[in-house]
Amino acid sequence: MEVENRYIAIRHHVEGSPSEDDFEVKTAPVRWTPESGEVLVKNLYLSIDPYQLNRMKRQSASHHSVDVILPGERIASTGVGEVIASACAEYEVGDVVAGVLAWEEYTLFRPSPAVLMGKVDASSGFPLSYHVGVLGTSGMTAYGGFFEVGKPKKGDKVFVSAASGSVGSLVGQFAKLAGCYVVGCAGTKDKVDMLKDKLGFDDAFNYKEEPDLKAALKKHFPDGIDIYFENVGGEMLEAALANMNTYGRVAVCGVISEYTDAGKRASPDFLEIIYKRITLRGFFAYDFMGKFHEYMGIIGDWTREGKIQVVEDVSDGLESVPSAFAALYRGQNVGKKLVKLA
Amino acid sequence: MEVENRYIAIRHHVEGSPSEDDFEVKTAPVRWTPESGEVLVKNLYLSIDPYQLNRMKRQSASHHSVDVILPGERIASTGVGEVIASACAEYEVGDVVAGVLAWEEYTLFRPSPAVLMGKVDASSGFPLSYHVGVLGTSGMTAYGGFFEVGKPKKGDKVFVSAASGSVGSLVGQFAKLAGCYVVGCAGTKDKVDMLKDKLGFDDAFNYKEEPDLKAALKKHFPDGIDIYFENVGGEMLEAALANMNTYGRVAVCGVISEYTDAGKRASPDFLEIIYKRITLRGFFAYDFMGKFHEYMGIIGDWTREGKIQVVEDVSDGLESVPSAFAALYRGQNVGKKLVKLA
Repeated sequence: MEVENRYIAIRHHVEGSPSEDDFEVKTAPVRWTPESGEVLVKNLYLSIDPYQLNRMKRQSASHHSVDVILPGERIASTGVGEVIASACAEYEVGDVVAGVLAWEEYTLFRPSPAVLMGKVDASSGFPLSYHVGVLGTSGMTAYGGFFEVGKPKKGDKVFVSAASGSVGSLVGQFAKLAGCYVVGCAGTKDKVDMLKDKLGFDDAFNYKEEPDLKAALKKHFPDGIDIYFENVGGEMLEAALANMNTYGRVAVCGVISEYTDAGKRASPDFLEIIYKRITLRGFFAYDFMGKFHEYMGIIGDWTREGKIQVVEDVSDGLESVPSAFAALYRGQNVGKKLVKLA
Repeated sequence: MEVENRYIAIRHHVEGSPSEDDFEVKTAPVRWTPESGEVLVKNLYLSIDPYQLNRMKRQSASHHSVDVILPGERIASTGVGEVIASACAEYEVGDVVAGVLAWEEYTLFRPSPAVLMGKVDASSGFPLSYHVGVLGTSGMTAYGGFFEVGKPKKGDKVFVSAASGSVGSLVGQFAKLAGCYVVGCAGTKDKVDMLKDKLGFDDAFNYKEEPDLKAALKKHFPDGIDIYFENVGGEMLEAALANMNTYGRVAVCGVISEYTDAGKRASPDFLEIIYKRITLRGFFAYDFMGKFHEYMGIIGDWTREGKIQVVEDVSDGLESVPSAFAALYRGQNVGKKLVKLA
């Protein structure tokens, strides 16, 4: 079987804020044979995540631990798809799979322990898109980052930045379920309203309307912050540290404000870190892979019981991937950003 | 009983590098009575520690968690002394005590759980000065910071900054005892030689001779750093983070290069922290108070068996406290800085 596969590639390395012009749609045939041992997937939903920008930078500007994307190459991404041909007993035509696919219409993979791909239990009744977000890496990141890195106790004061995003929107809700007091920040009034009215945050504020973030956090956390779930970096991190309590934990998930500007960095006051014995820990979803089924069982139950509101922001068609991605850096997404393929 | 007590005070708050002129010797009577319930101690050794500078800053320049010293006031400090009068059954005249005294000749205290003061077992045979350093807070800081925060495994690569100081010199030796590879940095050739020749560091370098700290660490750690014991801050921290391995730990003990310059701060690359899942944790000695006897038993054995070399730098007389303290910021001390009183 051979299909024409359209995929998204970068035209050149991207160093600043991404724009639609940095990308192109390319086409290449994908050939599957019964002898190949491979599985051919027709992709249904693709995940659009901020961290991808770090992979698009030049190697020299990047970090040795980042898997750099080259111009013209396919771009690996999590997604959900349907098996349309299989030369492997574990997968049948019609199976729905979720895991690492790519920004393309068809993905071919050879099952191996190194390939992060799981079959979706169709009887679960969840929308397929959930397996990219709340029941996929966004959920893993939020759950592992909040519970394993943040180590919440009942009554802890929790601050979440980029709180209306795919991960932040879940962290805030998890924090409420854990009995914490939670305040989020976001960049529009609508997002702030959503955090308070729909997602149950105790409070929320628009960081763009706060000339002094340190003072804003002082106002929202008169008793200090115990857990800061960090998605933003820069001045936000400095302001949060200045308001942390003794033995506070910073779960460092992302620093999106620093992704588009290599010269922009937080300059945290390390005296705060020492005197308040703060722990900052970087992590990502795959650190918790061994607990995937445990986490997804819990999050699935919460979702089914209506304890978690799932916020998705879906664009249509492969061609919309570049604009969907660029929108992340303009603060135009609300919740999990996805692209639904035709 | 009444004694004339001479003590060291700051003349004014100290914002930059301290100098002798920032201090004065003051005198005040100390009165002890049998009815007071108090213990009067004649101080023998006083500890001279860099962190004190942070207490000497104006409140506004300081942190809410720092116990600020006011001009003219006595300055609490760890030390060793001998009981010369006691109105408390637990202490007898002639007992040697170690704990929180002050930069003064005589200290009066009323025993309570809040007073960190312990009797020294004279039969242990250690020099009394050890109870301020290797068997006091320096040892606590080094042991707790390295083992509890650093969580070493055999074969780990350890980098220690300010490695010839009171804490760094112990951390490097503990790291060798734990089966790690350890490199230290210091600011003179003599100190570097001492680290290698006397203290058994695998390697050491003079940071003042390295125009590019990141490259210097790359050369010394071709396989990366697993544990960074942080005493310095600024560019050293940035350079160390750039060379850390996945799951690396940074034990944040002090940032002496930032103490004298409020505008100087590290701007760590948080992408390194995320992608390499690095943990940074601030701490200080009193976090490990519950394990004091356990730690001191171990360190005492190592010291007695000659597995630890103790490096002390002793000045004489109360008047030498200001110059001894200022010397810490000029890199003039080697090992634990102490003042021996007459």
